[in-house]
Amino acid sequence: MADKKKRRRTESDADPESDPLPFKSKLKPDSVILQSLKALAAEYAPSTSSSAAKPLTLSDLFLSDACREVTDLPLSSVQSAIESLVLNLTHSILSGQGFSFSVPSRSSANQLYVPELDRIVLKDKSSLRPYANVSTVRKTTITARILQLIHQLCLKNIHVTKRDLFYTDVKLFQDQTQSDTVLDDVSCILGCTRSSLNVIAAEKGVVVGRLIFSDNGDMIDCTKMGMGGKAIPPNIDRVGDMQSDALFILLVEKDAAYIRLAEDRFYNRFPCIIVTAKGQPDVATRLFLRKMKMELNLPVLALVDSDPYGLKILSVYGCGSKNMSYDSANLTTPDIKWLGIRPSDLDKYNIPEQCRLPMTELDIKTGKDLLEEDFVKKNPGWVEELNLMVKTKQKAEIQALSSFGFQYLSEVYLPLKLQQRDWL
Amino acid sequence: MADKKKRRRTESDADPESDPLPFKSKLKPDSVILQSLKALAAEYAPSTSSSAAKPLTLSDLFLSDACREVTDLPLSSVQSAIESLVLNLTHSILSGQGFSFSVPSRSSANQLYVPELDRIVLKDKSSLRPYANVSTVRKTTITARILQLIHQLCLKNIHVTKRDLFYTDVKLFQDQTQSDTVLDDVSCILGCTRSSLNVIAAEKGVVVGRLIFSDNGDMIDCTKMGMGGKAIPPNIDRVGDMQSDALFILLVEKDAAYIRLAEDRFYNRFPCIIVTAKGQPDVATRLFLRKMKMELNLPVLALVDSDPYGLKILSVYGCGSKNMSYDSANLTTPDIKWLGIRPSDLDKYNIPEQCRLPMTELDIKTGKDLLEEDFVKKNPGWVEELNLMVKTKQKAEIQALSSFGFQYLSEVYLPLKLQQRDWL
Repeated sequence: MADKKKRRRTESDADPESDPLPFKSKLKPDSVILQSLKALAAEYAPSTSSSAAKPLTLSDLFLSDACREVTDLPLSSVQSAIESLVLNLTHSILSGQGFSFSVPSRSSANQLYVPELDRIVLKDKSSLRPYANVSTVRKTTITARILQLIHQLCLKNIHVTKRDLFYTDVKLFQDQTQSDTVLDDVSCILGCTRSSLNVIAAEKGVVVGRLIFSDNGDMIDCTKMGMGGKAIPPNIDRVGDMQSDALFILLVEKDAAYIRLAEDRFYNRFPCIIVTAKGQPDVATRLFLRKMKMELNLPVLALVDSDPYGLKILSVYGCGSKNMSYDSANLTTPDIKWLGIRPSDLDKYNIPEQCRLPMTELDIKTGKDLLEEDFVKKNPGWVEELNLMVKTKQKAEIQALSSFGFQYLSEVYLPLKLQQRDWL
Repeated sequence: MADKKKRRRTESDADPESDPLPFKSKLKPDSVILQSLKALAAEYAPSTSSSAAKPLTLSDLFLSDACREVTDLPLSSVQSAIESLVLNLTHSILSGQGFSFSVPSRSSANQLYVPELDRIVLKDKSSLRPYANVSTVRKTTITARILQLIHQLCLKNIHVTKRDLFYTDVKLFQDQTQSDTVLDDVSCILGCTRSSLNVIAAEKGVVVGRLIFSDNGDMIDCTKMGMGGKAIPPNIDRVGDMQSDALFILLVEKDAAYIRLAEDRFYNRFPCIIVTAKGQPDVATRLFLRKMKMELNLPVLALVDSDPYGLKILSVYGCGSKNMSYDSANLTTPDIKWLGIRPSDLDKYNIPEQCRLPMTELDIKTGKDLLEEDFVKKNPGWVEELNLMVKTKQKAEIQALSSFGFQYLSEVYLPLKLQQRDWL
C-alpha cells in the first residue's frame, strides 16, 4: 500500500497533467463547502455583528485632535472649502499681514501606526508656507495655482489625471513631482481625499464575478463580462449601487491567476467577486476594493505569491502605503485574510522542489524588514509564516500550482482552502 | 485688430483655462464634420472598394513558397496537426532514422519586409532539430513537451498564460525564456498563431464607445461601460459578433487621454470606438484592433505622443514587431493613419514652449533610426514629420494640449482634426 502510494507520487511528479490531482480526494461536495461559506458571510453581515461592522474612527480613540485624516467630500464642499480658504487669505492680505498656507506635515516623523485602526495616520504637526519668504515663495505660488485648478475642476465637474494637471502650467511646476507633491498637500489642507479633488489615477485593475454596480450611470453586471472582465473605473465617486449575492471577495495579485479563475467562471461554482490590480495595487483598485468591502460586508481573501512582495502587496491593500498615509482611512480595506500561497502551503501541497525558487539576499532582507512592521506583528499567524519563509529561504509564485495541472488552482487548491477555512 | 489678437494670445498664455479656446472659432458645426466622417467611412466600406477591402496575401504576390506566415487555426486543426506530426515522428523512429523537428528560422536574417503587404514576414529558411545530437537534444525534448502540453489544452479547451506553461515543467524548462522561445517555434512548426495554441498574454487594453461584441458568450455593449470601459479579453478566439455604428476607430496611446475621452463620452458626439493598450501595445489589444478593423471596415486614426516612441508604437500596431514577425498577418492592422500629436502640430496649435520637451540624444538617435525603417519610408508624409521632429529636437506628449484647458483635446483638437481630415 505504501509502495503503491509512493509510486503514484512519482508518476505524478513525472506527469501531473494526466494523473489524479493531488489532494482532490480530500474535497467534500461543493454543497458542504458552500454551507460553510454561507456561515462565514453571515458572520460578516452587519446585523449579526453590529459592533464589529461599525469601524472605529480617530475620535472613538480620542485621537481626532492629535491625528489627522482626510475624508471624502462632495464636490460642492471642496469648492466652498477652497473659496473660504481664499477668502481668509484675502482678509489676511488686506489687513497687511501677507498670506501663508498652513500645511500638514506628511513626513515619516509625523506618521503613526494606530493598531486599533490597523492603519497609518498622520500626526498633527503642520508648518507655515508664507508667500513673503524666498525659500517658500515658489511652493506657495504652486499651492495657490493648484487650488485654482482644482476649483475649476469643481465648476466643470470633470476628472483629470495628475499628468494633465502638471501640463496646465509646466512653466510654473517645472516637473511633475512638484505639482504631485503640492496636490497631496492640498488634500491635507482641505481635509479631503485626492479623489474628492477629482484628480484620478490611471486604472489598471479588473473585476469579474457576482457583482452589479453603476459606473458613471451605466449598470454593469460583472457576471456578464466574459473572460476580460470589467476595467475598474478610475473615479470612485461615479461608482455606486453595488449589489451582490457573493459570499466572499477573492483578491488576486496577478493576472495569470485572474484569467484562470475568470475562464473557469470560478464565481459560479463558489459565489464570489474576483478582483486584481495586476501587480502593485493602484489607487483606483484600492478604493474599489474598500467600497465593495464596506457596502457589501463580505470577507476578503487574498491570493498572492509566497514571497515578501506578496505580503507587501497585501499590506498596501490592508493598511496603506506610507506616502499616502493621510488618506489611509479611505484607501485601506480592513481585515483582509491571507489565503495563500503561504510558505506553509509549499510543503502542505507538495509543491515540487523545482517550482520553488531560492530567495535572493534582497528578498530575505525584505522579509526580515516585514517582520518588524506593526501590521505583521499584530498577526501571530503571519509572523509564523514569514519566519518560515525567511528560514527556508524559498519562495513560490501562484503559478507554481500549475505543476499539478493548469486548473489545479480553481479545481482543487482554492476549493480545499475554502473547505478548510484555511486563511490567516 | 492685430493688437487685440496679440493681447488675447498673451492672456491665453497666462491663463488658458478661463479664456476662449484657441482655434475653437475654426470649428464648423458637428453636423458638417459628421457628414465628412460618414463619407470617409463609406470609402472604407467593402462594397465601394472591394479591391482594396480584400487584403493581399503572400500567394497573391507569388511569395507563398518563399515566405512563411502562420494562420489562425481552429482548436481541432491544431490538435490533428500535432497528432499527425507525432505520427510522422513515430514512423521515423520505427524505421530506424530517429527523429527531428524541422523548425523555421525566426532570426532577423530570415525576416523580410514586404511593402505590398506592409508587414514583416519570415523567409523560408528552416533548420533540423534532431534528438540524437548533444547540442539539440534538450531543445528537442522541450519542443516535444510543449507539443504535448498544447495537445492537452486542445483536449480541455482552456487557455493558459506562458507563465502557466513554464510552471508545468520547471525541471525541464529551467527558465521561462526557454519555454517561450520553443512556444514560438511550435507556432511556426504547426503554421498557426500563438493564440490558436490557446496560450494567451495577459491583457492590459481597454475599449469604450460604439461597439457591441461577445466575450466568451457574454454580449458587451461598450457604450454602457461607464468611464472605466471594458477590459479587452486575453483570448481573441472567444471574441465575436462585432457590431458597430461607429464611423472610425480612435487608437489612443495613453490612458490619460483615454480617460478624458471616455468621461466626455466623445463617442457620442462623433460615433467612434476608442481603444488603448495603455502604452506599449500588447498582443491582446493588437489582435482586438485588427479584428475590429477587419470585421467593421473602419478607418483607424491614431493619437500618440509626438516623439519617436509614439511613432514606434504606431508601427507595432501597423506592421508588427520583429520578434513575432511570423505572426505579422494576424497581429497587424493595415492602414493606420497618424492623426496626432504630430511634430507639425506643435507650431500649428501654438503648443507653449514650456510644454515641449527637448529630445535626448537617445530620442534623436531613435528618431533617425526610424527614418531608415521601411514602414516610415513608404509614407512621405511621415518622413517629413519625423524629419521635422529630429530637426527641431522637440517632443510633446498628448497631455501638452491640457495647457489650453483640460478638455481642449476632446472639445477642439480632435474635432478640428476630424473636420480638416488632418491625418497622414
